[in-house]
Amino acid sequence: MTSDAAYPFVPALRNPAGSPIRELFKYLSDPGMISFAGGYPSAALFDVDGIGAASAAVLRERPAECLQYGATEGAPALRQVLASLMAGRGAPVAQDELLVTSGSQQGFDFLARALVEPGSVVLVEEPTYSATLQALRLAGADIRGVQSDHDGMDVAALEAMLADPSLRPRLIYTVPTFANPSGATLSSARRLQLLKLVARHRVVLVEDDPYGALSFDGAPPPSLLALCASVPEARPWLVHLASLSKTLAPGLRIGWMVAAPEIVRRAVIAKQVSDLCTPPWLQLAAAQYLEAGRLPAQVAREVAAYRDKRDQLAAALGQAFGDRIRFALPAGGMFLWAALDGIDDAAALLPHAIAEKVLFVPGAGFYVEQRQRATFRLSFASTNLAQIGEGVARLARAVERAG
Amino acid sequence: MTSDAAYPFVPALRNPAGSPIRELFKYLSDPGMISFAGGYPSAALFDVDGIGAASAAVLRERPAECLQYGATEGAPALRQVLASLMAGRGAPVAQDELLVTSGSQQGFDFLARALVEPGSVVLVEEPTYSATLQALRLAGADIRGVQSDHDGMDVAALEAMLADPSLRPRLIYTVPTFANPSGATLSSARRLQLLKLVARHRVVLVEDDPYGALSFDGAPPPSLLALCASVPEARPWLVHLASLSKTLAPGLRIGWMVAAPEIVRRAVIAKQVSDLCTPPWLQLAAAQYLEAGRLPAQVAREVAAYRDKRDQLAAALGQAFGDRIRFALPAGGMFLWAALDGIDDAAALLPHAIAEKVLFVPGAGFYVEQRQRATFRLSFASTNLAQIGEGVARLARAVERAG
Repeated sequence: MTSDAAYPFVPALRNPAGSPIRELFKYLSDPGMISFAGGYPSAALFDVDGIGAASAAVLRERPAECLQYGATEGAPALRQVLASLMAGRGAPVAQDELLVTSGSQQGFDFLARALVEPGSVVLVEEPTYSATLQALRLAGADIRGVQSDHDGMDVAALEAMLADPSLRPRLIYTVPTFANPSGATLSSARRLQLLKLVARHRVVLVEDDPYGALSFDGAPPPSLLALCASVPEARPWLVHLASLSKTLAPGLRIGWMVAAPEIVRRAVIAKQVSDLCTPPWLQLAAAQYLEAGRLPAQVAREVAAYRDKRDQLAAALGQAFGDRIRFALPAGGMFLWAALDGIDDAAALLPHAIAEKVLFVPGAGFYVEQRQRATFRLSFASTNLAQIGEGVARLARAVERAG
Repeated sequence: MTSDAAYPFVPALRNPAGSPIRELFKYLSDPGMISFAGGYPSAALFDVDGIGAASAAVLRERPAECLQYGATEGAPALRQVLASLMAGRGAPVAQDELLVTSGSQQGFDFLARALVEPGSVVLVEEPTYSATLQALRLAGADIRGVQSDHDGMDVAALEAMLADPSLRPRLIYTVPTFANPSGATLSSARRLQLLKLVARHRVVLVEDDPYGALSFDGAPPPSLLALCASVPEARPWLVHLASLSKTLAPGLRIGWMVAAPEIVRRAVIAKQVSDLCTPPWLQLAAAQYLEAGRLPAQVAREVAAYRDKRDQLAAALGQAFGDRIRFALPAGGMFLWAALDGIDDAAALLPHAIAEKVLFVPGAGFYVEQRQRATFRLSFASTNLAQIGEGVARLARAVERAG
């Protein structure tokens, strides 16, 4: 094939940047590599038998429904059980507020299509999920960062931005609970302030909540969606994205969106033209699995394992780097966010880490502009407990080599 | 929830039109309804045992690969077997020309994102697949219809449009083999003319080919992709979309795109921000099924059944309407496209048909502008052979009522 074709790509795709995380995947094929990089749950914990049994049962009982096209909104059986699950999390939802998506990321993609035009202002907490930045860049958004700390998004800073009549954002994006990449959790006081703020300014707020169930110390804080019971005027402006990827299995690609019916209707149309429906077989298998009541025990296993890994990682980092390393202990989720004194740019450290056979994600890819290059993200979920100490020792050798 | 929210929807979604076909789905829950409407394959023919066995085997042998996140480009095992399948169809493809998509429609959606901006001109044969029109409208395209007849797109008419310097289209879209909705197949002479034309004008041509394998009279004509062996200068400009939806099962949502590496790379980035990957378990199950060599026998069963149904439908229509009905017999696929003398608008006939408990799709939804309202689409794939005569009798009563 000749390569001199000059395709009329849209501007956002003329010089596209791939995901900074997925660029690291090529190193994962090295069996000696220890990876703190991807946001992968632990495959060792997958409930393979439970998922296999549920999928075999629904294929046997409802083969045509499993294998035929399904409703774009989602399989009725799954929509019902997801509504129960949300009610159990303190957030009852009506059926016309609910859309099954192929992973929660697809929900954000459809929302961006419904609300974001080239040049639209979108506010995101910084640091933030890199694929969200990628989706917004593809949509041509004018992305602005809102600073955050270990209590989550700085709501006072957000308020100042919302008061600026030149901005008028289309969307605000946050991962308020056990955030990716920061591990931070929005405080209760800020949650209420945030809801009141979006209701007053009539701006759509996206609560991306894939990690909320992975709480290490008792129940997680109520989601923004659940808190709308106290701030009902915020409910039409809140879009809640959730997923089974971090609790059951990412390969099923089952997520869901809870939003006002008008927003769901637009997302359904985006889904009609994209993948038409999430595979009905996997939806029915997930519904069967959830109905059988297997998820709570599965989540409990994950929470116990991830908490141990977090503790192991934190202890190993403290031992290896002492006062040079700064991080706050995440209260759930999969990520530890750190900065090392004496390291100006974690990206420059990465080649040395790869040489030592350990992977992490440099912080720069999680920022819009004000990149804090000393930062980096360590995922503790998919690494074996036994590998964590060795991985940190390799990181320490990489820092020495870089020094 | 209050309903006075005024969301800043993008223009294409401000007054969205849902799919004209999916609007009919609500009537399918009536068990007495006979449907010639949706483009559904026959669920009675699904190889449930074969699919169940393949999926159980891969889950047993490679559980982590099935349930973890997978490569955005597609599972290596499936990509290899799809490359073999394409080679068997006379179109060898390299791995960097191939992307697994969640149904072939997702491939078109990603292509539209890569190449279509608001106002971009896109040429589509008329009548054409309604979801393609919907995707292009969402992208803000300036859609222009190219006339067609029973030999497919009128390539001379296309040539005149390409010669118009005010148009400069970003894309041309065609379903050249057993088309949806027309059932038409592009002639061999036009195929070669079309390839030479797009190479000369350096414009991307989308060959949507979900039906090619369902050929009733021997082998189908070579795809445009295969014919690029004779017109190699066209290959960089051709995008081929294919699917297992009409042959294996739509619920698996397995499609693929073959295109120049530069185009595939852009589609991969669109997929990274949308659904990240097609469910790896279903990809591996499909790969296992294809490797086991079960697809040809499955397709043979479908071809035999659909050919009988086409013949039954054609005979019943002739008997019921005589000279009043005009249609050409499709040589494959799932659709018969007809017009009835004395019917000015098939959409006005639809309520009477629904009252008689029979469904079809009025033709208007398949046109950009020059709607031939007397036309309508009948799918013969999912109806039982026994129901076809009764369905046509109901249609005849509906025509009487409408008269």
